Amino acid sequence: MTQPNDLCDHSAVELRARMQRREISPVELLDSCLARIAAVNPTLNAVVALDEAAARAAARAAEAAFRAGEGVRPLTGLPVGIKDLNETKGLRTTFGSPLFADFVPDFDDAPVARLRAAGGIVAGKTNTPEFGAGANTTNAVYGFTGNPFDPGKSCAGSSGGSAVVLATSMLPLANGSDLGGSLRTPAAFCGVAGLRPTPGLVARGDTAVPTSPLSVEGPMGRNVADLALLLSGLAGEDARDPLSRSIDAAGLADLTPVDLGGLKVAISEDLGFAPVDGAVRTLFRDRTGAFRHLFREAQDRDPEMAEADRTFEVLRAVGFLAAHLEKVEQTPDKVGPNVTANVELGLTYDARDVAWASRRHGEIYRDFCRLMQEVDLLIVPGASAKPFPKGQNHPSEIDGKPLETYIHWVAIAYGLTLTGHPVLCLPCGLDEDGMPFGLQLVGRRWDERRLLSIGAALEAALQQIPGCARPLPDLARLTA
Amino acid sequence: MTQPNDLCDHSAVELRARMQRREISPVELLDSCLARIAAVNPTLNAVVALDEAAARAAARAAEAAFRAGEGVRPLTGLPVGIKDLNETKGLRTTFGSPLFADFVPDFDDAPVARLRAAGGIVAGKTNTPEFGAGANTTNAVYGFTGNPFDPGKSCAGSSGGSAVVLATSMLPLANGSDLGGSLRTPAAFCGVAGLRPTPGLVARGDTAVPTSPLSVEGPMGRNVADLALLLSGLAGEDARDPLSRSIDAAGLADLTPVDLGGLKVAISEDLGFAPVDGAVRTLFRDRTGAFRHLFREAQDRDPEMAEADRTFEVLRAVGFLAAHLEKVEQTPDKVGPNVTANVELGLTYDARDVAWASRRHGEIYRDFCRLMQEVDLLIVPGASAKPFPKGQNHPSEIDGKPLETYIHWVAIAYGLTLTGHPVLCLPCGLDEDGMPFGLQLVGRRWDERRLLSIGAALEAALQQIPGCARPLPDLARLTA
Repeated sequence: MTQPNDLCDHSAVELRARMQRREISPVELLDSCLARIAAVNPTLNAVVALDEAAARAAARAAEAAFRAGEGVRPLTGLPVGIKDLNETKGLRTTFGSPLFADFVPDFDDAPVARLRAAGGIVAGKTNTPEFGAGANTTNAVYGFTGNPFDPGKSCAGSSGGSAVVLATSMLPLANGSDLGGSLRTPAAFCGVAGLRPTPGLVARGDTAVPTSPLSVEGPMGRNVADLALLLSGLAGEDARDPLSRSIDAAGLADLTPVDLGGLKVAISEDLGFAPVDGAVRTLFRDRTGAFRHLFREAQDRDPEMAEADRTFEVLRAVGFLAAHLEKVEQTPDKVGPNVTANVELGLTYDARDVAWASRRHGEIYRDFCRLMQEVDLLIVPGASAKPFPKGQNHPSEIDGKPLETYIHWVAIAYGLTLTGHPVLCLPCGLDEDGMPFGLQLVGRRWDERRLLSIGAALEAALQQIPGCARPLPDLARLTA
Repeated sequence: MTQPNDLCDHSAVELRARMQRREISPVELLDSCLARIAAVNPTLNAVVALDEAAARAAARAAEAAFRAGEGVRPLTGLPVGIKDLNETKGLRTTFGSPLFADFVPDFDDAPVARLRAAGGIVAGKTNTPEFGAGANTTNAVYGFTGNPFDPGKSCAGSSGGSAVVLATSMLPLANGSDLGGSLRTPAAFCGVAGLRPTPGLVARGDTAVPTSPLSVEGPMGRNVADLALLLSGLAGEDARDPLSRSIDAAGLADLTPVDLGGLKVAISEDLGFAPVDGAVRTLFRDRTGAFRHLFREAQDRDPEMAEADRTFEVLRAVGFLAAHLEKVEQTPDKVGPNVTANVELGLTYDARDVAWASRRHGEIYRDFCRLMQEVDLLIVPGASAKPFPKGQNHPSEIDGKPLETYIHWVAIAYGLTLTGHPVLCLPCGLDEDGMPFGLQLVGRRWDERRLLSIGAALEAALQQIPGCARPLPDLARLTA
């Protein structure tokens, strides 16, 4: 049986330090990860493609690099889980779609190439819904990914597989992507950390609408320092992503001590518009009530988000049309209901709708900039609802009110997408059902280093506050 | 009569140095500019709003700053012409629209605020077509702006007023903006320089669609060093423009010597798709033929631009809908034919068209990135047609072929807009009718310093090549 203190359970930062001191070898670490995968993945179905031989070869190369004193890249020797929306050279990449069930790319996309260049080991692919559509992780190729705190419940999505491998220590690091909460909602449901960066900080692969700032790539990890380490290996310019820019990537891992008592924060239960479950509201008030005294000033305040639903819906639909219209038209039986519904919704809009949404998007962005000139941080619930049972696509209602679309329940996440600001997710204890509860922390644009530094300080404080520490799943229950 | 060697005829860089050495005062410089404006503006109608008292007060303040040894900001004491699309606090800003004929803003927009913060003196507004729509400078508020080389011909647009004040030394510097060539075509028609920067380098004011990279702000000047100086005062981050980023603005004026003999350049007569007048083609071949030997390698090569017309047309129309639909619907008699036509065109598109154009835009961008990995520079004609007579909205045909839209004749400019790369315009002699001829030089994204350095080296070389020097208008002919 797997032990909760195996090598794979240690933080990425610690593992890196121990490899650098040559106390442990990358091969040992990989073996520990593979043993954990073998133990819990049959129950959870989070790792969906694996090339042990290639991963071992990379681990041996990293071992040799450390032995030769060359192991100085940020991620050398660390196995990383790659979301199955990112192309990985030589490793099956399905996008959760039957159309790509047998696709083995002959190239790495931009983030994967950067991870490898930073020394990271591509250790396996993590499950995602078809083309990332939806906040639940299940698809026709690989099936459902279970929540480590209750395998019969959803781990959310679309970066669900990545959140699960982290929560169970199958891998120390994993990447995610986020359009409407795709890395934030799974982080909240699984009790791990995730960062939606400012659009452009992490260069994306070839996207259908590269000028759109809605969809971004970002790091996930078990704690903020691990996140920052992965970000330092992921971030940077790639001319092919027009939003990307040259930055000091290494500096992103260099967090600075922050005195929470010097900060002014805003706290918003629902961004002023998002449907939020009553139990989540209560929990959010209780948890923020337990730590808001840490800040110099904490004010309850909602950003200006009028018409955020329709704004996001229209802009997202344009992206779906650009990416998937041809598939829906040409191979309708090979495309699932979420993608089809989005494309069909998109076909109902005209350019006037798109212009309206583009304009409103700009207004929401600018209003939010003004808010962030006044506060250091905005704190929001990590998710609007509690993890729902396997078999359900999404919560069908919140507080008795039916939801308009299958993504309306993540409005608390996509509202923040529209602001263009970076969002850090932190776990914050369990709910009354024993499922993880999370927070979203919004910082200033292009200042991820500050946001992560604040997040690390808050994370440390939360470990000392009853009920606010990072929750751990019961591995014994998950072991096949 | 005005003299061609008045103080105002000197370059901005030289004037700045002389002010710093206290050989001349900002007040003297402003007086020289005002005298030139008084002499030639009645003929040309380029400066459309002027507050002499405010400008003099600013010049006196700059004089005092130099006297106190404080005159160290990049633009201190330099009068700058501001395009009438930029809001200027206390100075009439009409956007060329009767709806705003009496609008006096109580704020500066982002670029104007930055110019003032850099020490620049807002010396007057320069004419532009209604809301910048169209590549000809005439509107119902102020009327037509004439070309300094033939006042009966167009100076192009929409930054026509700025190009004209520079060509005639009414002011040493002026700003422009550029969606489909709005600062490049006037630079070409008037024999001056202009830079369309990488989107985000110069933060914009509040635009209707701030996530769109098509419309940018940029500097105009009589030579590259002046451009670079103005850029160093204009560029920089403003959170309210989501594309903007923090940069080393001062470094942009610090051009480095470039050996043209080390460069590999591509030369394209029509970007592979743009309508280009036969006489312009011949001239372009002759001129590039006279200097292509300067480069290590010069290859004739077109970028991949299939469907650029429709791509630009659709994306531009979305911007017009976002910015002007309400005006067209609510006050149709107060909106001119160009804006109305664009809005009406926009109403014919659906979200599928927008998605298609957004996707194609990304492909054009990425193809162009690949080209620019192979060459240091792409050289293209500055304009597709020769300056056309007053009274005409645009050339009605090119080489006997009627043009599809009123902006189709600037396809050589808007094709480059879609690439997202910076474009420097340089004058290159006169055509056979005595009108200026210009070039567009495309450099690598976010590397304006390199592009300007290359441009300065080429500019210096062109002054020595027969027929390629910067042309000067006959001031005597323009003096009222």
